[in-house]
Amino acid sequence: MQGAITVSTSGQGLYEITRDVAEFVRGGGRAEGLLTLFVRHTSCSLVIQENADPDVQRDLKAFFARLVPPSDDPSMRWVTHTMEGPDDMPAHIKAALLPVSLSIPVAGGRMALGTWQGVYLFEHRTSPHRREVALHLSA
Amino acid sequence: MQGAITVSTSGQGLYEITRDVAEFVRGGGRAEGLLTLFVRHTSCSLVIQENADPDVQRDLKAFFARLVPPSDDPSMRWVTHTMEGPDDMPAHIKAALLPVSLSIPVAGGRMALGTWQGVYLFEHRTSPHRREVALHLSA
Amino acid sequence: MQGAITVSTSGQGLYEITRDVAEFVRGGGRAEGLLTLFVRHTSCSLVIQENADPDVQRDLKAFFARLVPPSDDPSMRWVTHTMEGPDDMPAHIKAALLPVSLSIPVAGGRMALGTWQGVYLFEHRTSPHRREVALHLSA
Repeated sequence: MQGAITVSTSGQGLYEITRDVAEFVRGGGRAEGLLTLFVRHTSCSLVIQENADPDVQRDLKAFFARLVPPSDDPSMRWVTHTMEGPDDMPAHIKAALLPVSLSIPVAGGRMALGTWQGVYLFEHRTSPHRREVALHLSA
Repeated sequence: MQGAITVSTSGQGLYEITRDVAEFVRGGGRAEGLLTLFVRHTSCSLVIQENADPDVQRDLKAFFARLVPPSDDPSMRWVTHTMEGPDDMPAHIKAALLPVSLSIPVAGGRMALGTWQGVYLFEHRTSPHRREVALHLSA
Repeated sequence: MQGAITVSTSGQGLYEITRDVAEFVRGGGRAEGLLTLFVRHTSCSLVIQENADPDVQRDLKAFFARLVPPSDDPSMRWVTHTMEGPDDMPAHIKAALLPVSLSIPVAGGRMALGTWQGVYLFEHRTSPHRREVALHLSA
């Protein structure tokens, strides 16, 4: 079974999609299986992270902003792909560093997530975007 | 077919699970298939790495300790999620950077690993933990 | 269905394999399914990246060369695994940081890639290598 989730983003950060993905899995009516998520873009990512303390998400965003600063930052003078804005090449780099696909076993009709795991789309661009996550549920 | 591996960790570093995973695959009795591993935590990771020279594992651990120092390090003063100890937020960051799921084709009844590839759980916390890796073998 | 792609590399950088992978998927004759790629090495990676502007690939390569410099660089004095050359341990580190496996849904008989997504092998060693990517197509 296949499907898709659309996420409207408004700047860099994590957008939780756990509930939408869980609904897709429920609709599949499969007790046991394998769920695969795939993001159809090169400037955002999929991550599984703690869903309890929102500080974790803020710190994650801060870490990646420091690891890969905007291309108009003095430390990034070597960047050549700058025509789409200072957030563009850093977004591609983060999209290489972080997952484009995730595979999660389904057991008892539900994703086998740990207690503290949530599924997120990590937006790396600053302007609003419409992101598509393809879903595939197999045996 | 589904299963799980439990790994008892005693501090940061790589714990090899290749043998346990291979045993699960053998038990599945499937000549050809797809194996998926999924770690049910947000502060450890799954990695495939060289299984020959133990220096490689030591250097890997050292690299990530330098890339993401403890949150009481002066360079990490921006971290806000500190209540669970100085190794906690760095653990979440490493868990975002490194795989939460791995998919390995099974051929001739065995994982199609290259000669030097081993499967490891990478623990990012300093205190002992009990980690669960969910396994799924499909056609 | 399973298969393999062999990539001859001649130094660090991205080698596009989208066309070869698409051909394998076409040969599978499956309208809907899940494609998994797995690289059988510990010193190269698989990445999905922008296939439009070649500057993106150049900048990606530059970013990772800066994040993980050769082990004879003064900043890398802590590295112990150096016997296979200064590009070897950095290659293992990059192979941990970047994907060893990718899963892509197949819909309408084709990979559900976004408009700008291409599939690449990212070589981390400087000398020529022959790399094998295992492919698995399931329901």
